Amino acid sequence: MQSDEQEIRDLVSTWLEATKAGDTEKVLELMAEDVIFLVPGEPPMIGKSPYQEAAQPHPDQPVPDIDGVSEIQEIKVLGDWAYMWTEMAVKVTPPGGQPVKRVGHTLSILHKENGKWVIARDANMLVPVNEK
Amino acid sequence: MQSDEQEIRDLVSTWLEATKAGDTEKVLELMAEDVIFLVPGEPPMIGKSPYQEAAQPHPDQPVPDIDGVSEIQEIKVLGDWAYMWTEMAVKVTPPGGQPVKRVGHTLSILHKENGKWVIARDANMLVPVNEK
Repeated sequence: MQSDEQEIRDLVSTWLEATKAGDTEKVLELMAEDVIFLVPGEPPMIGKSPYQEAAQPHPDQPVPDIDGVSEIQEIKVLGDWAYMWTEMAVKVTPPGGQPVKRVGHTLSILHKENGKWVIARDANMLVPVNEK
Repeated sequence: MQSDEQEIRDLVSTWLEATKAGDTEKVLELMAEDVIFLVPGEPPMIGKSPYQEAAQPHPDQPVPDIDGVSEIQEIKVLGDWAYMWTEMAVKVTPPGGQPVKRVGHTLSILHKENGKWVIARDANMLVPVNEK
């Protein structure tokens, strides 16, 4: 049996891999129904639907390549809940375009639902950086 | 006896009042020894010391007026731990200078230590806004 901490680490790996593969369905499975995403300068994104819509490919907008790496700084399990602090770098490259790299920290709340960890709240503090 | 949620709401009020009053010692009492503050574009601030140093008045830097309001969006108590999502607006006015207003969300982890709630982790997603 895996530890909760290892299951949460696996969730992060799966999230990054599924995002890179463009597998939105898989990513949606990793979040709670009432998930809330918080970022600077934007209203909160509440529930799976806004994420799903944002991830949907548009005919006039080619799908970007999203390549993320995460260094988990801390995981604290509190029964069926946990919090996690990560340091992340995400490179988004539109087809034929220049990559935009964003780096920074995340603080997430996770919840174990039906024996499976999912992201419940997520504070994303990534900012764009210049990189060759 | 007060509920944990009410105690956490009181902590937020005390924090804002003490910050406005320039009472750094009071604010420091409201955070865990190993507190971690996360903001966009900066390294993490770990422990009370960096906060204390940043809050210390410098002879060549007049003390700004810091006026914050917080709308608590969610508090979830998990035993001796809790998480809290707030929407905040903070106006910082240097003496004789123009105010700078920042608005946005925070996601915090709180811990009950010796019967008293303190901030343990804090993700601050406030960004500057223009305001007359």
